[in-house]
Amino acid sequence: MPKLSARALSLQESAIRKLDAVAMARTEVRFHRLNIGQPDLPTPAPMMDAIANFRPPLLAYGPSSGTPACRAAAAAWHAQSCPGLGPLDVAITTGGSEALLFALLAVCDPGDEIIVPEPFYTNYNGFCTAAGVRVVPLRTELSDGFGPPSAAALDAVRTDRTRALLFSNPGNPTGAVWTADQVGGVLEWAVQRDLFVIADEVYRQIWFGQPAPTALAFDFAKEHVLAVDSMSKTWAACGLRLGLLICRNRAVMERVERLGQARLGPQPLAQAAGEAAFALPERYYAELRATWGARVDALHAGVAAIPGVRTHKPMGAFYLMASLPVADTEAFARFLVERFEDNGESVMLAPGPGFFGDPANGRDLVRLAAVYEPERLGRAATLLGAALQAFAAAGG
Amino acid sequence: MPKLSARALSLQESAIRKLDAVAMARTEVRFHRLNIGQPDLPTPAPMMDAIANFRPPLLAYGPSSGTPACRAAAAAWHAQSCPGLGPLDVAITTGGSEALLFALLAVCDPGDEIIVPEPFYTNYNGFCTAAGVRVVPLRTELSDGFGPPSAAALDAVRTDRTRALLFSNPGNPTGAVWTADQVGGVLEWAVQRDLFVIADEVYRQIWFGQPAPTALAFDFAKEHVLAVDSMSKTWAACGLRLGLLICRNRAVMERVERLGQARLGPQPLAQAAGEAAFALPERYYAELRATWGARVDALHAGVAAIPGVRTHKPMGAFYLMASLPVADTEAFARFLVERFEDNGESVMLAPGPGFFGDPANGRDLVRLAAVYEPERLGRAATLLGAALQAFAAAGG
Repeated sequence: MPKLSARALSLQESAIRKLDAVAMARTEVRFHRLNIGQPDLPTPAPMMDAIANFRPPLLAYGPSSGTPACRAAAAAWHAQSCPGLGPLDVAITTGGSEALLFALLAVCDPGDEIIVPEPFYTNYNGFCTAAGVRVVPLRTELSDGFGPPSAAALDAVRTDRTRALLFSNPGNPTGAVWTADQVGGVLEWAVQRDLFVIADEVYRQIWFGQPAPTALAFDFAKEHVLAVDSMSKTWAACGLRLGLLICRNRAVMERVERLGQARLGPQPLAQAAGEAAFALPERYYAELRATWGARVDALHAGVAAIPGVRTHKPMGAFYLMASLPVADTEAFARFLVERFEDNGESVMLAPGPGFFGDPANGRDLVRLAAVYEPERLGRAATLLGAALQAFAAAGG
Repeated sequence: MPKLSARALSLQESAIRKLDAVAMARTEVRFHRLNIGQPDLPTPAPMMDAIANFRPPLLAYGPSSGTPACRAAAAAWHAQSCPGLGPLDVAITTGGSEALLFALLAVCDPGDEIIVPEPFYTNYNGFCTAAGVRVVPLRTELSDGFGPPSAAALDAVRTDRTRALLFSNPGNPTGAVWTADQVGGVLEWAVQRDLFVIADEVYRQIWFGQPAPTALAFDFAKEHVLAVDSMSKTWAACGLRLGLLICRNRAVMERVERLGQARLGPQPLAQAAGEAAFALPERYYAELRATWGARVDALHAGVAAIPGVRTHKPMGAFYLMASLPVADTEAFARFLVERFEDNGESVMLAPGPGFFGDPANGRDLVRLAAVYEPERLGRAATLLGAALQAFAAAGG
């Protein structure tokens, strides 16, 4: 048989999904699945109504960069934090995933490099592999609350092939929220070196202290910033597959339009639901933050109380990273899924190495998603403490 | 501002969509839009009902390669023409577009080449550019009914970097249907040289003489063939964005699963509509063929009767290619949109160069889509004849 491509062969199996099959087979155990960022909150009713009421005589192609109505609604919504933003600054995509892929294709050729502060969202690897782009990871630290890397650290990994800096803020998997000063500092570094910045802001409405800033609002960097947004988290609609690529640089957006033409256009049906999302009252977002804030607090309190565990208070998104007193969190995650149970319950978590460029790193870390009611998260933390003891007792 | 990627800068504007803005501004003219393959037939009611009835509490992620129910339905449906096909041989994608992109990424690295008989579907260029793959076009001829290239012709363009052959059957833009013997011959050539074959079969149910064969059914090539299908044409649901990648080579499908993991999973809502599509009775497809057959006949009869025009009888899909008595069909297409009208009507068509690797080729050709009732297509052909006279009189 013919050889597959080297890029396809290099794709790693998703660290997060790896243990799913094992857990599914162990039907007698109730797993608290803190390993995947799938919110359990209901999708807002107006979005579901928009889907039920979408009944054109035929499901026709829509424009490459989105329907005029959805682009306008998205632009008006984002203009609240980036005044002056218009429909031409926004392209509708099939999930934040496609927005990220288009951003990479627009700014990178095969063999180019992007700098990505780590730990980072695992799937950045997959998109970069598809695009033939090399991820250059740059460590950020739990002890520092996963703050941004310094200009000196960034310069140390920059090469002639560096085209962009890619980060998520609020951070997945870190739960960190970089302040406006911190984002501004990183943007200054990039603009001075004439590099693009791809800001993954899909968790931007989910913050617990200060509002998370958008990289789009820095006028001095308006030609340099490409921002990614998505319906998945803020609007509890992961399965809708609707995202946005936002950029005030028209040359970029012209190229995004052409990238989009090849795949014709994103689904008009999903965009009808998107319009409904952008029409939700401000109260929706306040409630969303209160809900996630209470959950993250409960998870943090429970995990921080486990002996030997180091963690930090998430300021946004709905993830918590923790350093566990084990040599290898991959082995511990397997132990939880294959062997541990307490009163018929166990926990699933995402081992740290999946979030690092080199999987030899992050072996003490795990990512936990606060995707349940506070009470259930408290129980999950208790189970985690018991499992750590059992793992140690078993010689883990 | 930083430089955009060379691949993004190389993307051509879609030849088909180029004149749309001009036509939209000329509101006093009724255009017969034969330039785009957007069926005007209604999407089957059971598919629309499936959308209206899709009401889970939240729109959650689905599996990377598709929901079990949709994969099973797709596999059972395709097993009618390829016995033994199972759910693991099928991945659900966001349109045939994504299936094609995944196929390219699975078999080609940046710098690799694929051979594509031309004229070919314009968007192959965009996907290959995104994937960093070089399209090597190979002429097929109107005089020959756009039959497949010979083994000698294929060998003449094959290099060390050749990884696959890509063709559509039934053909877009040609309307040709390669017979089982012809497909078998092309597959033999590829298998002997251990190359992959990507068969774009999104029009396979739309044939007017003999049924169009699927490349999947050739057992000797089962490790080599990747087939693309889509809901867009057969099920009149272009805007649903639901496609399939089908391949009996498990190593390929494992890599497609991993490519798919980065973008999480295709929309479960669309897959519910897909299940309804695969449950339609056989009568639906017979009626579909009768409808398109009558349209293509009407368009062919009208166009073939225009003095100086050469064309051929389409045997599938819903396109007709014609050689017009003009030096440059791009100029003629502009003339139709900008200047021509007869009784307040004009025609839009897709100029030939957009379907060729080198846009210096195909300058006498146009693609016409039979996307209206027979009567309206007859009128469009009459207008085309009148426009050719007016264009000649204007010195075109």
